[in-house]
Amino acid sequence: MKKVYVAGVGMTNFGKSNKLGRELALEASIMAINDAGIKPREIEATYVSNAFGIAENQVHVGPLINSSLGIPEVPSLTIESACSGSSAAFHEAYVALSSGIHKVALVVGYEKLSMNPTSENTRYFAMASDYWFEGLNGVTFPGLYALMATAHMKKYGTTEEMLGSVSIKNHRNGYYNPKAHFRKMIDMETYLNSPVVAYPLKLYDSCPFSDGASALILVNEDFNERKSELVQVLSSVRSGSMAALQDRNDFTGIPGAKIAAEKAFRNSKLSPSDISLAEVHDCFTIAEIMAIEDIGFFKKGEGGKAELEGLTQYDGKIPINTSGGLKAKGHPVSATGIAQILEIYEQMLYRVDKNRQVSKPEIGLAHNVGATGGSVSITILKRVR
Amino acid sequence: MKKVYVAGVGMTNFGKSNKLGRELALEASIMAINDAGIKPREIEATYVSNAFGIAENQVHVGPLINSSLGIPEVPSLTIESACSGSSAAFHEAYVALSSGIHKVALVVGYEKLSMNPTSENTRYFAMASDYWFEGLNGVTFPGLYALMATAHMKKYGTTEEMLGSVSIKNHRNGYYNPKAHFRKMIDMETYLNSPVVAYPLKLYDSCPFSDGASALILVNEDFNERKSELVQVLSSVRSGSMAALQDRNDFTGIPGAKIAAEKAFRNSKLSPSDISLAEVHDCFTIAEIMAIEDIGFFKKGEGGKAELEGLTQYDGKIPINTSGGLKAKGHPVSATGIAQILEIYEQMLYRVDKNRQVSKPEIGLAHNVGATGGSVSITILKRVR
Repeated sequence: MKKVYVAGVGMTNFGKSNKLGRELALEASIMAINDAGIKPREIEATYVSNAFGIAENQVHVGPLINSSLGIPEVPSLTIESACSGSSAAFHEAYVALSSGIHKVALVVGYEKLSMNPTSENTRYFAMASDYWFEGLNGVTFPGLYALMATAHMKKYGTTEEMLGSVSIKNHRNGYYNPKAHFRKMIDMETYLNSPVVAYPLKLYDSCPFSDGASALILVNEDFNERKSELVQVLSSVRSGSMAALQDRNDFTGIPGAKIAAEKAFRNSKLSPSDISLAEVHDCFTIAEIMAIEDIGFFKKGEGGKAELEGLTQYDGKIPINTSGGLKAKGHPVSATGIAQILEIYEQMLYRVDKNRQVSKPEIGLAHNVGATGGSVSITILKRVR
Repeated sequence: MKKVYVAGVGMTNFGKSNKLGRELALEASIMAINDAGIKPREIEATYVSNAFGIAENQVHVGPLINSSLGIPEVPSLTIESACSGSSAAFHEAYVALSSGIHKVALVVGYEKLSMNPTSENTRYFAMASDYWFEGLNGVTFPGLYALMATAHMKKYGTTEEMLGSVSIKNHRNGYYNPKAHFRKMIDMETYLNSPVVAYPLKLYDSCPFSDGASALILVNEDFNERKSELVQVLSSVRSGSMAALQDRNDFTGIPGAKIAAEKAFRNSKLSPSDISLAEVHDCFTIAEIMAIEDIGFFKKGEGGKAELEGLTQYDGKIPINTSGGLKAKGHPVSATGIAQILEIYEQMLYRVDKNRQVSKPEIGLAHNVGATGGSVSITILKRVR
């Protein structure tokens, strides 16, 4: 297997945009190409991720991006894996590059949904659940994650303040991220007084619907990488869980996340204590608490306490979501996975605001979840130069 | 690179179905698993293809299939590449298996759209064009392929009777395919008198919207293949073309198809004359004529004449679309690519009706096009045991 490196990254602002999804995707792609210092002509395959292109009447976006880049002959495809789509696209590119079938790939994820009313977007999202048993019966994602939150509270004594500490931290980090959807800090009082969406989850427990795109250039060891900095992909692992919550014995964690993390650590001969920083899937605050337990940063049931104690702050024991996470940076469904990897890459290159810059970002982990865990991706990155 | 084999195939009837798309996909998957003689537990990754799941309110179908198969921990993803989605999914599985990352993969494509009115489905399909410049301005796929047909007629003297001979042949083959959407023969008079959809394309030049699913099990050389028959994937190549017709200099062929075919022949050290049979993308009859020229079975401009002369009949010089093709077998968008490979596989195992069984099906080629060629897949298969 050949070594695979992230050669450059690009990302639009996350939030509400008046541009077309294809424009956002192209914009992020060009930023990544420029950041990598390559010519479009060097790209051998394009991996696009998008979930709800039908909302814009546009699917099959890869050929549009490639045509605009002047490389129409380059193969492309669109990958959907609910909210983990661009991590899945990243994985497909990683497999092709590590096998040597390609040397240079463009991976780009985007979503554009702000022209829809929120209720319509909630309905779209619910299509990624086991719709016939969940969405159709009125259980949308706030409801599903609320079931996980109440189960976690009952079994481990997790409190609303613990959930709130996730939100406050991520809003703080987002404040220092110029591309974040929300750039305002909140305090515990604001958090606790925010409207309930699905008990115990409140407005400030919930990530927004965002427009946005993120992209990166992946290369393998056969490519003459010209940059002085080099970030290697140590491991890219995907797994899954029973699609519907009703088919699981326990709601307090995501089985596929545990499986994928264990395999990623095994593959890279690392353990959770080797990780310098992680971006995890905090679509709701409870998801971040489950994530840091499933990955193994904290013992099962102790994630909420760790958040409350500040261990996950950018300067804490294990910095989590220094980007602001889905909560504050925003969640343009199929742009999220790459945006997580981008944050780790930019941290490793010391490119981020000093108020959220991790001191020694040597090894980073990205944890991206599709739906309630039907799909999970874990990526481990290391700066090697 | 490890050798990759098709170990088993499955396909639902194509046509109008009252089942959910997820049910069709599961049905085809179970058929492929049984045909391969494996246990679901042996599957290491699931590659799903679907384009318009939103029409059924269900995306993220991989975890549903895997959950139903009792393998929730297996990673899955959904791939869209317009009408070539399941060939793209096949390619991704092929790459993973040839690299050795996985040994056994399930590839399944499905589409379920018959609950929509035809006009709505035409609108859906147009989303795979360069929508902002094509679909939005009223040019749906019949119109786009009509432009290609008139260009071909003008430049090469291709006639309506030549187009008709494609339709008549494919309807004949579909008559002998028990899973085909249309199982009726037509004659030239019926063809010529059928209503014009977009001149020169008539009703009988056009494939239908079908529901259906197709699946296959791919294994690599590390898997202990237990069947007495063995079909190897010699080459799997994808390419593309400028997305919008307006951005091309010539409409009489598909640039990406030529590129992909040349590369596939180069990779497998074969030439068009080595191919025993081919399934090509005949969404409209002109598409089959362009395909057999782009692949190199016939010189540019001579495809129509070859069809009229019967050279592409199941017992002709180069049998094309013995399954009935998209025209008669049907076109459930994301099930089509795998269904093409399935036909070649079943031909190689002498499983099809004697009235369409090719005499010595040693090496087969599948040609699958997304939209007007923004994406193209070429797969070459050989029976090796």
